[in-house]
Amino acid sequence: MDITPLLSQNALSMRRSQIRDLLSVATRPEIISFAGGFPNPATFPLEELKDIMKEVLETEGYAALQYGSTEGVVALRKEISKLYKREEGLDVPIENILITTASQQALDLISRIFINPGDVVVCGLPSYLGALQAFWSYQGNPYGLRHNRGLDEACNVLCATGKKPKFLYSIPDFQNPSGETMTLEEREYAVGVAQKYDLLIVEDTPYKNIRFSGESLPSMYSMDPSRVIMLGTFSKTFVPGFRLGWIVAQPNILDRLIVAKQSADLCTPAFSQMVAAKYLASGAYDENLKKTCALYKRKKELMVKSFEEFMPEGVKWTNPDGGLFLFLKLPVQYDTRELFDIAIKENVAFVTGEAFHCDGGGKHTMRLNFSFASDEKIVEGVKRLANAIRQLYAKHA
Amino acid sequence: MDITPLLSQNALSMRRSQIRDLLSVATRPEIISFAGGFPNPATFPLEELKDIMKEVLETEGYAALQYGSTEGVVALRKEISKLYKREEGLDVPIENILITTASQQALDLISRIFINPGDVVVCGLPSYLGALQAFWSYQGNPYGLRHNRGLDEACNVLCATGKKPKFLYSIPDFQNPSGETMTLEEREYAVGVAQKYDLLIVEDTPYKNIRFSGESLPSMYSMDPSRVIMLGTFSKTFVPGFRLGWIVAQPNILDRLIVAKQSADLCTPAFSQMVAAKYLASGAYDENLKKTCALYKRKKELMVKSFEEFMPEGVKWTNPDGGLFLFLKLPVQYDTRELFDIAIKENVAFVTGEAFHCDGGGKHTMRLNFSFASDEKIVEGVKRLANAIRQLYAKHA
Repeated sequence: MDITPLLSQNALSMRRSQIRDLLSVATRPEIISFAGGFPNPATFPLEELKDIMKEVLETEGYAALQYGSTEGVVALRKEISKLYKREEGLDVPIENILITTASQQALDLISRIFINPGDVVVCGLPSYLGALQAFWSYQGNPYGLRHNRGLDEACNVLCATGKKPKFLYSIPDFQNPSGETMTLEEREYAVGVAQKYDLLIVEDTPYKNIRFSGESLPSMYSMDPSRVIMLGTFSKTFVPGFRLGWIVAQPNILDRLIVAKQSADLCTPAFSQMVAAKYLASGAYDENLKKTCALYKRKKELMVKSFEEFMPEGVKWTNPDGGLFLFLKLPVQYDTRELFDIAIKENVAFVTGEAFHCDGGGKHTMRLNFSFASDEKIVEGVKRLANAIRQLYAKHA
Repeated sequence: MDITPLLSQNALSMRRSQIRDLLSVATRPEIISFAGGFPNPATFPLEELKDIMKEVLETEGYAALQYGSTEGVVALRKEISKLYKREEGLDVPIENILITTASQQALDLISRIFINPGDVVVCGLPSYLGALQAFWSYQGNPYGLRHNRGLDEACNVLCATGKKPKFLYSIPDFQNPSGETMTLEEREYAVGVAQKYDLLIVEDTPYKNIRFSGESLPSMYSMDPSRVIMLGTFSKTFVPGFRLGWIVAQPNILDRLIVAKQSADLCTPAFSQMVAAKYLASGAYDENLKKTCALYKRKKELMVKSFEEFMPEGVKWTNPDGGLFLFLKLPVQYDTRELFDIAIKENVAFVTGEAFHCDGGGKHTMRLNFSFASDEKIVEGVKRLANAIRQLYAKHA
């Protein structure tokens, strides 16, 4: 049966993840992949989890395996509240926290309750692909801001032309994919613009606590909790496999998100929430996070050093203070899609930067993950990539 | 900040679950609740799960805690395929199976890829509230069919007036809330109507294997796999807390659902999928299901017997061959919302039937769950409810 005539406008405006399709090419064992955003499995606290899971089943097994509340397990929301207090001195009552089936669901629910077809959302250029996918899947129209300082002008134009943005989407710490971190001044400026035009900000913080150097900066949420919706996740700091994230927002917003979550998946598994709560309460989370940061710092430095050693002329890269990614730029005349085909023949994979550019730009850019690969593979993979870039250069010489 | 002007049409068309709000009233410990759809915790295989979880962490821990594929874990899809072969002699290749974050997500994804604002979906009257919520949240327009035999006429009218339904939604086995099971002839008739008007059928089967008596009937999917999307879940036959369900459909449909799931939550937790796969492979699933059916059969019979003993004149109830619910009807002039307030004072809760009627009808009906309460509470709760009904009668005498 041909279902094409039956498809909704939402279905037709969805875009398949390029990362997903690239990854399916990149699963051959001989390929060194810098394409995914996978945390390193060495950071997974397997032993602790074995004990905690046993304990949860023994002490709260029936509740853990039963239907849970849509808001999420109270014990976990309390631990998240304590985490904010401990890490940022921020008071977040549990009434302001909704547990989600990881950040992707948070982006989905926010898009669902705010975006009508054609609505503008202001985001970075580049910006996180999963967020763009969520906006597109509700027929949203992401506008990619070229320069942070252009935000006021962009919002003014959009408001003046009847295209007032539904919200500003930002990853202020070690942005995916650019690795950039907003300065304190930039955060204050963005909150000021949101206040000026009466806009919401969606502040996505998956990498905030994966910091290698420099000082942590206050969240935009702390500057104006009334208009900032803050997203968090345990995918990078604990394990991604539990699919545990959360939304911090005022009750008037959270209440709408809870109704949306009811019809999206009723509730996030209580069992994994209880396990995460016990893990956080044990203190092991903070200890493990320190080790994770140290590991990723070393891996980032190794990748940057390998770039310095092997990359040909004209390749530029970021050197972020945290996160999981490096962002590379070739000279503007080159296309990383063309490079991708050569790189796959050389058995190395990355994500083309175009995937992160809602305006179709960024063709000469690419994202590389440094958290997942072994040290040997980082060095060997960079060598292969440098070799592929040289072939691309030669082809167009 | 007032977010009302920012809300999407989807958000405005969402309806808060009445069950959820009723349940929040019904959580006081002195209340005997027949309101939820909770499986009995005595059916949760806690001991087996302890061992299997340990084994999964020891043998596949890193993969179990990492990001998984959107389609779901292959081992679990294989076990589901075997389950269909074992239970129904049905060949379902794993390429036709997508794992979802339980059935509610399946309903959400299907609504997302098919429903445009105003689109008609034909469903039962009454029908499952969670499905209605999913349809409404995409501004769908559920039409509740009064009589199964009216399907042809209804589809003809809808097609002739430019309102061709996007799909027919049906729970053929022990329907929630009515408890009714479609006969073989009714299934063939529904598939025939779908073929005649070139419609999809969404066949939801959460209770199919919770059968107490009578013979299992072939699925509509088995009659025409090209146009039937079949939903399954482990929420009633294993544990609801893992949030594990699935969709069986042809690859052209599944492919769209996979793209939708990418932006909804990327993937369902791999860990719980691996645990479920091992549990199914061990054979304990089939054994446990037999015990579950025996337990629920006894509880259903106890509730029916209590009705017979205590209910006043004029109350009618179903006596289904399976599932988790009994459906009650008062004489038509009475309103179960009014009864609910009296019942809460008597410390007993149920769900008003109106919640399951997309046309606003069914005010004299109510749904009672028999799987969760202890035997003592079933008897005592029915006594209290009968008492509440007598008070309602007296008030209007």
